[in-house]
Amino acid sequence: MRAAVLNAYTTTEIGGVVVVGEVDSPTIENADDLIVRVVGAGVCRTDLHILEGQNFGERPVPLPHVLGHENAGVIEAVGAGVVNFAVGDLVLCYPFLTTGLDHAERQGFEHHVVDRSTPGINAPGGYAEFLKIRERAAVALPKGCDPIEYAPLADAGLAAFRACRKAAEVLRSSDTAYIVGVGGLGHLGLQILKILSPAKVVAIDVRQAARDLALRLGADAAYASFAEAAHASINPPKAVIDFVGSEETLTSAIDGIQTGGRLELVGVEGRLDIPARLLVERELTVSGSLVGTYAELLELTELVADGRLEVVVTKYSLEQVAMALTDLREGRVLGRAVLVP
Amino acid sequence: MRAAVLNAYTTTEIGGVVVVGEVDSPTIENADDLIVRVVGAGVCRTDLHILEGQNFGERPVPLPHVLGHENAGVIEAVGAGVVNFAVGDLVLCYPFLTTGLDHAERQGFEHHVVDRSTPGINAPGGYAEFLKIRERAAVALPKGCDPIEYAPLADAGLAAFRACRKAAEVLRSSDTAYIVGVGGLGHLGLQILKILSPAKVVAIDVRQAARDLALRLGADAAYASFAEAAHASINPPKAVIDFVGSEETLTSAIDGIQTGGRLELVGVEGRLDIPARLLVERELTVSGSLVGTYAELLELTELVADGRLEVVVTKYSLEQVAMALTDLREGRVLGRAVLVP
Amino acid sequence: MRAAVLNAYTTTEIGGVVVVGEVDSPTIENADDLIVRVVGAGVCRTDLHILEGQNFGERPVPLPHVLGHENAGVIEAVGAGVVNFAVGDLVLCYPFLTTGLDHAERQGFEHHVVDRSTPGINAPGGYAEFLKIRERAAVALPKGCDPIEYAPLADAGLAAFRACRKAAEVLRSSDTAYIVGVGGLGHLGLQILKILSPAKVVAIDVRQAARDLALRLGADAAYASFAEAAHASINPPKAVIDFVGSEETLTSAIDGIQTGGRLELVGVEGRLDIPARLLVERELTVSGSLVGTYAELLELTELVADGRLEVVVTKYSLEQVAMALTDLREGRVLGRAVLVP
Amino acid sequence: MRAAVLNAYTTTEIGGVVVVGEVDSPTIENADDLIVRVVGAGVCRTDLHILEGQNFGERPVPLPHVLGHENAGVIEAVGAGVVNFAVGDLVLCYPFLTTGLDHAERQGFEHHVVDRSTPGINAPGGYAEFLKIRERAAVALPKGCDPIEYAPLADAGLAAFRACRKAAEVLRSSDTAYIVGVGGLGHLGLQILKILSPAKVVAIDVRQAARDLALRLGADAAYASFAEAAHASINPPKAVIDFVGSEETLTSAIDGIQTGGRLELVGVEGRLDIPARLLVERELTVSGSLVGTYAELLELTELVADGRLEVVVTKYSLEQVAMALTDLREGRVLGRAVLVP
Repeated sequence: MRAAVLNAYTTTEIGGVVVVGEVDSPTIENADDLIVRVVGAGVCRTDLHILEGQNFGERPVPLPHVLGHENAGVIEAVGAGVVNFAVGDLVLCYPFLTTGLDHAERQGFEHHVVDRSTPGINAPGGYAEFLKIRERAAVALPKGCDPIEYAPLADAGLAAFRACRKAAEVLRSSDTAYIVGVGGLGHLGLQILKILSPAKVVAIDVRQAARDLALRLGADAAYASFAEAAHASINPPKAVIDFVGSEETLTSAIDGIQTGGRLELVGVEGRLDIPARLLVERELTVSGSLVGTYAELLELTELVADGRLEVVVTKYSLEQVAMALTDLREGRVLGRAVLVP
Repeated sequence: MRAAVLNAYTTTEIGGVVVVGEVDSPTIENADDLIVRVVGAGVCRTDLHILEGQNFGERPVPLPHVLGHENAGVIEAVGAGVVNFAVGDLVLCYPFLTTGLDHAERQGFEHHVVDRSTPGINAPGGYAEFLKIRERAAVALPKGCDPIEYAPLADAGLAAFRACRKAAEVLRSSDTAYIVGVGGLGHLGLQILKILSPAKVVAIDVRQAARDLALRLGADAAYASFAEAAHASINPPKAVIDFVGSEETLTSAIDGIQTGGRLELVGVEGRLDIPARLLVERELTVSGSLVGTYAELLELTELVADGRLEVVVTKYSLEQVAMALTDLREGRVLGRAVLVP
Repeated sequence: MRAAVLNAYTTTEIGGVVVVGEVDSPTIENADDLIVRVVGAGVCRTDLHILEGQNFGERPVPLPHVLGHENAGVIEAVGAGVVNFAVGDLVLCYPFLTTGLDHAERQGFEHHVVDRSTPGINAPGGYAEFLKIRERAAVALPKGCDPIEYAPLADAGLAAFRACRKAAEVLRSSDTAYIVGVGGLGHLGLQILKILSPAKVVAIDVRQAARDLALRLGADAAYASFAEAAHASINPPKAVIDFVGSEETLTSAIDGIQTGGRLELVGVEGRLDIPARLLVERELTVSGSLVGTYAELLELTELVADGRLEVVVTKYSLEQVAMALTDLREGRVLGRAVLVP
Repeated sequence: MRAAVLNAYTTTEIGGVVVVGEVDSPTIENADDLIVRVVGAGVCRTDLHILEGQNFGERPVPLPHVLGHENAGVIEAVGAGVVNFAVGDLVLCYPFLTTGLDHAERQGFEHHVVDRSTPGINAPGGYAEFLKIRERAAVALPKGCDPIEYAPLADAGLAAFRACRKAAEVLRSSDTAYIVGVGGLGHLGLQILKILSPAKVVAIDVRQAARDLALRLGADAAYASFAEAAHASINPPKAVIDFVGSEETLTSAIDGIQTGGRLELVGVEGRLDIPARLLVERELTVSGSLVGTYAELLELTELVADGRLEVVVTKYSLEQVAMALTDLREGRVLGRAVLVP
């Protein structure tokens, strides 16, 4: 099959190291295996980290490697023990392949299982014609839908959903929440937070196009910075969901957030460096959010199926993989970039 | 009346600037005023911060000033509108004097009211024969009890209680929690956490005497550091309550805590300085805890009244105030230092 | 002043026992008293219960009595100790007058205080030109608003808000909730539940006009009964909020609700009579909801001020009081009946 | 193998219909099957219901049938796909056999899966030498422990644990909780509630021996009825856990419970028949509790392993099965009856 193969790490030119060519197709080996013909594979900032040789919380995988951990498609083949899916079914791929037996997942935290396989991270991913997953990781999509629209939910949407769900716990109808960064995750996050909480939602992004997108998707207001929002007499936030996570955004959030408020961290660009007393004096909570659970992905998928959540996608062919990754790195993608193999 | 008066800020000799002498006694001015004859006034690290010229989250108060925000005693006089207390009643003094009308306190957060009076911080405190509070701040103590034993609850105990209550939300019977710092707050915190959660409780303190105290008060184990606990094959903590808050203790906590775990911050000695990704990769939560609510103080008081919580007190006379403050600064106090005016 | 006075109990003709006439105006007695010129006074099913001689959870009040526990208006006079309100301010009246000192309200439950005064129930109410409340019970309304639109929030809206907030705890985006009874409470409840939860909301009411109203206000569907909803292949509810509380609606709810679901009870017409095993086999929860807290009323008021919640009002003059009560009893009121004294 | 076989339904003599004889031993059929040599099989009130022809929430199973849904033992054989267990391991058997794929269990509710196999209910149970379960249902027990002591956890303990965990959500240190019925479930429940909540725990049982047991196991007090407790000036309960569920115990609970309190139902003997207004006037919550989750069973097992929970067992040989069932029906068992095949 054709796939985009990463042959070397790079911090500069992407085109030379990610090359589309022929590789072996995956085959059914275990009773619960599923082979998925990939229809859409989201392009994620984590892919850029891997390109640079980082290995975000996972064991490294030897090169050559096929990226792509945010996949949706059509079932091509099923193992002998698969009970809920058949060839031709449309599926969204939960990113983590687990046994269902780990203590963490018995407690409802599949995403905390340490000994897991994650296609695109430590196993062959979805920048390819075909992808192998397990039945436990498959989410059924509505008949007749376009899987491309759902692909970004598997990681970007799910991370945004979980962070919003946690932030919503402190949000009341009289509160305001800030979404920092209206990119692949943030443009979903601001819509999700409007659905999950009664708070007003303000988008913060330095890019005018991103702010325009935020307003079109339902944000109550959009500003280039916390300072601009304050200058416009917007209420300080009771919760901030930071999809950037730079020193600058984190410091703005800690300084601006109301007493008793919550900072939900998804982006991981920088450091959190603050006097301990800042958290104590105003009883602030800072919490990291990592992808999410299978159950959360089910709920999220329902929102798109019901037409309540709009996924903004910029499509690239498999051959355009280097362009897609470069556009993401340069901040030129509107919504989420999705490869269409 | 006699009182210990702070006449100047100092970072060295305390004896010269805190002087016992005569000051005007407080008098009933408002209908809900209460005059309390102070029986016990706890000596707190916040007092040391004020001594050094800091003003922890409060508006500064001009010198001369009477310290003491952790008070218990006997009611000496009551305003015309007081309904639930009479002269001779024993009371514990909730530290914040508020109107009951602020939005924050209508939502159950008296300790978030900005415009408040706090005896010992921005009003005359309890290092004196008499103290003025308001009826809303009075907690009834059992007849015949010794108020000295209850005084440390008003701040040290309450801060520990609230932090433990929040930490208990994530603790299951199979979990371990670490209490960092077994001083005035921590010796109460480890007992409270045993009552509020089913988790095993491990005490961390560099001082042998503090560890001995922790074990006597019911800690399941006690070690000098996270490293020693790890070396003894103690389970890593699901929650850490840090009563020190130094760079060293905070870094140990973030490194050691389990995925999905919670760091509850009470001590504020240093900075929290970590890569954002540490919080995200293991979905950690860091939360500040500031004193607590009146309702929490009621619950806490019940624990002492029922004999379930032991308050370890080192008594000093009013004349020994400089010694008490110095002993605290030097780490020589076992349990909580309490002035007995 | 003019007021509608209840002179005798009745289960038949209302006109003869509720008579508009002259009574003494209330006067400032305590420092925190407020006199409100009533602009709108909601007409509630509880008023019908009082008319019939019942005394819903309160100590009886001797006749003659002035009804009206759901009031909004303009401040006419203030006590000497009032700090946050001035003559001319628009206010909504939280129904319970308390001291702020009771243990229940220190824990955030003003509506659980036993020893309280409730205008219209055990003190003179708002079916009159003027009403006396206390500063603690006043909620500031936006300048220039119409208090008539806010009056129904004080009881009908607040009871609906609290019930919805509790039900929302179990509701996910893939769930459906049923609102039973689209009257004074239910027409607010269905809108509130859409704001507080991501669930689909189905209205159940035997009256066609009520179902039409529900659909206009945003209900996802409306049916005459659980059976009709089931016949239309609507998902069974994860939560039911029952504003009727008859044997029939309660039995339908218990039979129809999903495993792990929740029945929130507001209406109290009948009995709950079920085998214990029905609750156990499907792990159902049945919970009563009684009015709500002052903080909840603040949040709710914000929703109307922001234009997110539409209060449907049928206005009556003070002289039409008997007609208003009769229309309510006969099920002829659309939305909430409000007297305009 | 030898097993106790139920050959006919009865409401009178048990000896004639439950007969010990030879039946086929279970064999490994699926990759995740486990064969357990039964060391202890708890005798449960549900067994009595089945004996009488009832089928508590499950599809009926044709006779002859082998009872026993509360089992612990030693692994005798493992399927080819089993990863975490080996022959000779000690295990406790979670009662429900599921695929791990159902939506309910992906959301953390294995006990809500409808299409499940439950040995002793709709599949051959543990009143036998050998039992077949699946790997997902196995809980590892500590090496060298006595499985007999753990067997009652699988159902009695788990149901008590879940009910206590839910009740603990409303319990503060100043509250009192009542445990109604100190039998197989209640004697565990009172200990568990002391561990999970800071409340005082009062046991209610008409039997003197049961009350004595309650006091020995740590109950703060024990009475024959709510009326006796009230007569002794015991605080009314904030939460009641009813392990009986008769009209009498349910009515006592609803009448006695405090405003804002919670009734947790486990026993299902009778009807709940109350005016709806009783739940609303005092904002009471009534909630059913059904067995529990695998994760809860893990936590519970830890309590016994740590020596914090005492399981009181009355042992019977397999041949004494009719005596065990009869003793249970007649209320003569102290703690839990366990068959030792």
